Amino acid sequence: MNIKTNSNFKNIKETYLFSEIASRVRRYQEENPGAKLIRLGIGDVTLPLPAVAVEAMVRAANEMGRQETFRGYPPESGHEFLKKAIADHYTADIRLSEIFISDGAKSDIGNLVDILGNNKIIIPDPVYPVYVDSNLMSGNKISYISGSSENGFLPMPDQIREDGAAVIYLCSPNNPTGAAYDRAQLTKWVEYALKTGSLIIYDSAYEAFITGDLPHSIYEIEGARECAIEVCSFSKFAGFTGTRCGWTIVPEDLKADDGTSLNKMWFRRQATKFNGVSYPVQCAAEAVLSGEGIRQCMRNIAYYQENADMIAAVLDEKGIYYTGGKDSPYIWLKCPGGMDSWTFFDHLLGKAQIVGTPGEGFGEAGEGYFRLTAFGTHENTKEACSRLRELL
Amino acid sequence: MNIKTNSNFKNIKETYLFSEIASRVRRYQEENPGAKLIRLGIGDVTLPLPAVAVEAMVRAANEMGRQETFRGYPPESGHEFLKKAIADHYTADIRLSEIFISDGAKSDIGNLVDILGNNKIIIPDPVYPVYVDSNLMSGNKISYISGSSENGFLPMPDQIREDGAAVIYLCSPNNPTGAAYDRAQLTKWVEYALKTGSLIIYDSAYEAFITGDLPHSIYEIEGARECAIEVCSFSKFAGFTGTRCGWTIVPEDLKADDGTSLNKMWFRRQATKFNGVSYPVQCAAEAVLSGEGIRQCMRNIAYYQENADMIAAVLDEKGIYYTGGKDSPYIWLKCPGGMDSWTFFDHLLGKAQIVGTPGEGFGEAGEGYFRLTAFGTHENTKEACSRLRELL
Repeated sequence: MNIKTNSNFKNIKETYLFSEIASRVRRYQEENPGAKLIRLGIGDVTLPLPAVAVEAMVRAANEMGRQETFRGYPPESGHEFLKKAIADHYTADIRLSEIFISDGAKSDIGNLVDILGNNKIIIPDPVYPVYVDSNLMSGNKISYISGSSENGFLPMPDQIREDGAAVIYLCSPNNPTGAAYDRAQLTKWVEYALKTGSLIIYDSAYEAFITGDLPHSIYEIEGARECAIEVCSFSKFAGFTGTRCGWTIVPEDLKADDGTSLNKMWFRRQATKFNGVSYPVQCAAEAVLSGEGIRQCMRNIAYYQENADMIAAVLDEKGIYYTGGKDSPYIWLKCPGGMDSWTFFDHLLGKAQIVGTPGEGFGEAGEGYFRLTAFGTHENTKEACSRLRELL
Repeated sequence: MNIKTNSNFKNIKETYLFSEIASRVRRYQEENPGAKLIRLGIGDVTLPLPAVAVEAMVRAANEMGRQETFRGYPPESGHEFLKKAIADHYTADIRLSEIFISDGAKSDIGNLVDILGNNKIIIPDPVYPVYVDSNLMSGNKISYISGSSENGFLPMPDQIREDGAAVIYLCSPNNPTGAAYDRAQLTKWVEYALKTGSLIIYDSAYEAFITGDLPHSIYEIEGARECAIEVCSFSKFAGFTGTRCGWTIVPEDLKADDGTSLNKMWFRRQATKFNGVSYPVQCAAEAVLSGEGIRQCMRNIAYYQENADMIAAVLDEKGIYYTGGKDSPYIWLKCPGGMDSWTFFDHLLGKAQIVGTPGEGFGEAGEGYFRLTAFGTHENTKEACSRLRELL
């Protein structure tokens, strides 16, 4: 064919992280057929859907099978019943017209570039790869601000070297570091954005893991309505990774200098390139936001949190630096003895039969760090912790 | 904010079609409170989901609620069981790696611009607005090729005035005209695309309505694997407008001149900006492709087709020119007496209390035409036909 393809795709790095992990694990298993591996690299939930979600989905599926209750095309931005449940879930005031239901946070984070022009992009490192790749696909230039033990893997605005307005991606609690901004830190980010005319794209997909007094939403910070879009998800809160539902808040106060409303642009983008979320899925999402739904979800989160506590306790005992573990299902630790990420991967696999994720796979600033996750079973996590205790 | 937004959004026309219809209908009802309106403008299915789909969705929802059968993140391009069912549904040979499951045809049609560069775009007029708007949002220049009574609302390559490669959108059976290309016509399109190095984006969302000997897929035409992407949907075939599932075929033979594989690009796009379709929805989609599923779906389509037959019979009797009605749920008729689209809309509403859709809303070439749809009940359609018989 003689047509032009999007040449920006050539700038996206192939990621070998998970295939490289798989191939090292396979080789180890072939050489050590008796080894009992424990996987602490899982980035996906493992507990089943809360009962309220299943019941709501079954009820809705049956409604779809009867003439009187059948539903056709949903509104592109979501059914009102779910928008109401989400608005009620926020402590900040969010209007229904500012809520856009989608099939997941990843889609929205990836698609938001559609309504933006060619801006400077600021992304923390290490980072969830979608921020980077979706911007590379659009030909945008990215500047990174590094996490480190000095800033607790919570990069701050004073690290930005460029002047002027930018689109800034923040994720708190963070994937992969588990670090979460407190109110004072997020306030600094909002102040910086307002001062420079920047837009923050705030990924709060892990907010349900927050136990301390940290903001669950950027809209808890004054001024955020004029400078921030928030993307959130049912995936980690309610175990919806395979059920698929998320939402994005685009405040009506978000205006470009020429008066363009980002809310109206996102509405138009979604109405043109999206056709709404499955009715049974939206019903399940509504159900998990009920009182009983939240109780069931929080039981699952507490289960994962116990795993995180167990792992964190070992690292505390051994005096190993880490972020996360609290307010997050991720534990991000400094590889002991100055090992690099992949050396520690092999060390942990060979000596303790534990599979984790090398931090280097999430960006340059992840080199020398390692991610463990709390999504395993209590039994496996306990066993992994006793192996870690011996090894470290 | 001082950031740049996508200025191409300024080139998209606001569409007032459906809001204008709603306001004219509301006014009529206020002035004529006793009038019994019949809506033949519905573009959405109305019959409930086939039983197999409901059963599969209920089964899958229950699986999601049990530890042993819970499913997390689906593969971004779809579960293999559904890809297999789709591949088996094609008469042409389609590899599983060429099938990408999504939440619907609209998403894929809209998102395909992401992998393309700045090409000439050829779009038939009248047309489904997503082809136009998604290209305007990307800043692409569109040339239209007009449908008319001369070409039976099936524009052909000899109408193209530009030289060289282009991205060409085709929809057959067409929305809104109901016209469908035959094998000879589609062969001409494929030959044209191969000769000029063009890419065809082929929307076959209405293929299940084909009753005659017409191609259901562009891959029934030799050479299409080297020049065509096909987007299809469960929405009209299985009544999935509110359940949300579709798919796109990107053949591995589709290569740009520099060797770039469009299949690999679309895989990367979806893996970056999409996270797969809900497991219960994919199970429902698999179920409708079973032998019993297809029987249940085709019963619903036969029901709609009877409506289309009734409407077409009236137009035949009255000697009114139309396309569609056969092989499509849409009937696209020439407004009688040289009326323009909106005059006929008011005429039909005022004299027969029937609501349809003015053709002008689908593009300039739609002026003087009118769309009726077959998605109503038999009872209402029959009543509408007897009113039409009196009026026309």
